[in-house]
Amino acid sequence: MERILSSELSQHVGERVRLAGWLHNQRQLSALTFIVLRDRAGIAQVVVEGSAISDVATLLPETVVEVEGDVVLSHQAPGGAEVVRPQFRVISAPTELPSIELSRRTLKEQLPTILDRAPIALRHPRQRAAFAIAAASVAGFRAALDGLGFTEIQTPKLVGTATESGANVFAVDYFGRHAYLAQSPQFYKQMLVGVFERVYEVGPVFRAEPHDTVRHLAEYTSLDAEIGFIEGHLEVMAFAREAIAGMTSAIGDRAERAMGLLGLKLPVVPAQIPAVDFTEAQAMIEAATGEHVVGEPDLAPAHERWLGNWAQLEHGSDFLFVTGYPMVKRPFYTHPDPARPAISNSFDLLFRGLELMTGGQRLHRYEDYVSALAARDQAVEPLESYLQAFRAGMPPHGGFAIGLERWTARVTGAVNIREVTLFPRDLNRLTP
Amino acid sequence: MERILSSELSQHVGERVRLAGWLHNQRQLSALTFIVLRDRAGIAQVVVEGSAISDVATLLPETVVEVEGDVVLSHQAPGGAEVVRPQFRVISAPTELPSIELSRRTLKEQLPTILDRAPIALRHPRQRAAFAIAAASVAGFRAALDGLGFTEIQTPKLVGTATESGANVFAVDYFGRHAYLAQSPQFYKQMLVGVFERVYEVGPVFRAEPHDTVRHLAEYTSLDAEIGFIEGHLEVMAFAREAIAGMTSAIGDRAERAMGLLGLKLPVVPAQIPAVDFTEAQAMIEAATGEHVVGEPDLAPAHERWLGNWAQLEHGSDFLFVTGYPMVKRPFYTHPDPARPAISNSFDLLFRGLELMTGGQRLHRYEDYVSALAARDQAVEPLESYLQAFRAGMPPHGGFAIGLERWTARVTGAVNIREVTLFPRDLNRLTP
Repeated sequence: MERILSSELSQHVGERVRLAGWLHNQRQLSALTFIVLRDRAGIAQVVVEGSAISDVATLLPETVVEVEGDVVLSHQAPGGAEVVRPQFRVISAPTELPSIELSRRTLKEQLPTILDRAPIALRHPRQRAAFAIAAASVAGFRAALDGLGFTEIQTPKLVGTATESGANVFAVDYFGRHAYLAQSPQFYKQMLVGVFERVYEVGPVFRAEPHDTVRHLAEYTSLDAEIGFIEGHLEVMAFAREAIAGMTSAIGDRAERAMGLLGLKLPVVPAQIPAVDFTEAQAMIEAATGEHVVGEPDLAPAHERWLGNWAQLEHGSDFLFVTGYPMVKRPFYTHPDPARPAISNSFDLLFRGLELMTGGQRLHRYEDYVSALAARDQAVEPLESYLQAFRAGMPPHGGFAIGLERWTARVTGAVNIREVTLFPRDLNRLTP
Repeated sequence: MERILSSELSQHVGERVRLAGWLHNQRQLSALTFIVLRDRAGIAQVVVEGSAISDVATLLPETVVEVEGDVVLSHQAPGGAEVVRPQFRVISAPTELPSIELSRRTLKEQLPTILDRAPIALRHPRQRAAFAIAAASVAGFRAALDGLGFTEIQTPKLVGTATESGANVFAVDYFGRHAYLAQSPQFYKQMLVGVFERVYEVGPVFRAEPHDTVRHLAEYTSLDAEIGFIEGHLEVMAFAREAIAGMTSAIGDRAERAMGLLGLKLPVVPAQIPAVDFTEAQAMIEAATGEHVVGEPDLAPAHERWLGNWAQLEHGSDFLFVTGYPMVKRPFYTHPDPARPAISNSFDLLFRGLELMTGGQRLHRYEDYVSALAARDQAVEPLESYLQAFRAGMPPHGGFAIGLERWTARVTGAVNIREVTLFPRDLNRLTP
């Protein structure tokens, strides 16, 4: 008999079926025992009458079992159907009581315990749901950009030159030479604009973050895109909007059950995401809060939260672009505003008041790179192989990067980014 | 005027259009100059009459330009149409003659030069085509497994414990502690079978290969899958066949032009890929070649090539599974054949005589892991966080891994795997 999934039960009312999964929970009510079986699709209720329970009652939670039984309608059961007159077969037995109590509606353990015991804790339907949302988001990112003529790339994570400042980079012993773990695919995606014009990558990036915060990881998944033949950063923002819209709609299509389980609503992505200029934003924050922020080179997290609320109230939008950041806080490859050289053609995207994405137009002329590096007292030599691309003719281009875990944290409302990272890496954590 | 792509020219005959791209080539024929413009879709021919050429003639190859002109039918032009009465505008000028001669039909430079100058060499249509095939393959892998209920995962590349033997692992300074770069997502994909049942990952893996060969890289892209609730390795092979079929058909759908440009034919994936037992294969090789191979624990590359030819002659298949490898050469998590404990429930897939994929059934009982590690004198402690999953109940499961670059090399006929790796990493190469 072909195995069916818990989600398919209601299509088989009146039939005998075979399910397989984990013993998630059991609950005795007078002469009946209700057994909850968990599989990849969700949970199914199996009802055992009277003494037939004896052989199942002794099984440990998380025992892997097969169940054959008859499907009947049931208003109380998840999905509106349950299995009666079951026959159980043990496929694989655990060796002990699970170290996480998975039968609870929500886990009672603290986050460090949950992370230490991730192989078990992740089995909980609510934990698992966050990752169904993440997977759907990645699929949506790809689908949106595939539809716009992008080529997917895989670029090296072992690099000879650090992308950003040397501060938070991991060093690797590379056959006796010095190498680094890529902090971003920035240089590679730019070089490949010269090849494919439009590229994206979904891959790990590495930051030796010495801070222990709820929003930083030492390794995370970056959704990167880069686009050639643009007029300026406004066009990059339009592409970024398409990526976000694709991610959101894929969650609706592919992770509907996960969203329902967590009681979440899809973010609304306006056809045009509102944008505010950096200095105007500072003026608004100063006027509203009395804090002296005008003239600061960047926004503090509290100010991003303020802007998130403002975008919600003023525009009914979960998203807000901030443009016109000063050049001084942006990386050397940032393109300035031709009319205001101290201001960058770059942007951040805030999602519910948290920085989700950074992007902008990049320099595309070799001479501009030479000047930009000189102005920062950075040597040209370590970047020679990257700068080849610009000596050979590069179109105006720009791009953006989205932190997948930050996105998932905002969509699910997770406070700590570690909650939505399968096996987080930070200052203190390297296992499991 | 909206920009169109070179591939769209023939849909605009009789219209004035705007193209943008790189000056790929120019060729003077009496009073006419033929300019070849390259964009992300391919190349377009632009015809300049008489003295109108003067302003274009001086432009360096790889100049980024915009062209407005009238589209006319032309039998000699690529795609059957060309642009006449053009007006050029320079978008971005190179600073020098490109260090790779891109206008040649095939590059004349040797591989090390091509790799050193990858940002330029990759712009050549034939170089670029291999990566369109790679990107299509990855999309096809995902589509096949998405359709079979898999969840896409991203697992950490910074790990506290090496997966395979400690020999070819890169060490990382992790905030003053010892960490490694993951040699495969093996442990993580297994743990996640306990969560999602069916998982796949497309991501980098790292091997500190001390050998300088045409088929090894220090970093490559692994297409990994793992499946729970299987009967044995034959079921894993059936999933692997679906993945390969998906990759092949996606090349047909998404990289048709690239295949045509390289003059390639799609591999044929039989509905059932033929399989041969390891000891039977050895007996055949010994009988045919006279070499003494029966009793050896593994197949040499020459023997894999012999089997590839045999599969082609005997079964008309580009693919051949080899099953029944001795346990002794397989990793500790390999499941033995219950009837023959010295033989593994594992397989390799040969593609045109080269090992493309390794897979098999894994142990799923905690006690079996303890015994397997004891038999190899390996300590259990470093694997504690991984083994949690097995203490908590794991179904029979198995999986496989495909090296993307090996796949692309076989599809394109590339002799050296570096030819089909965007920015290869090996014993000697860390840039660009």
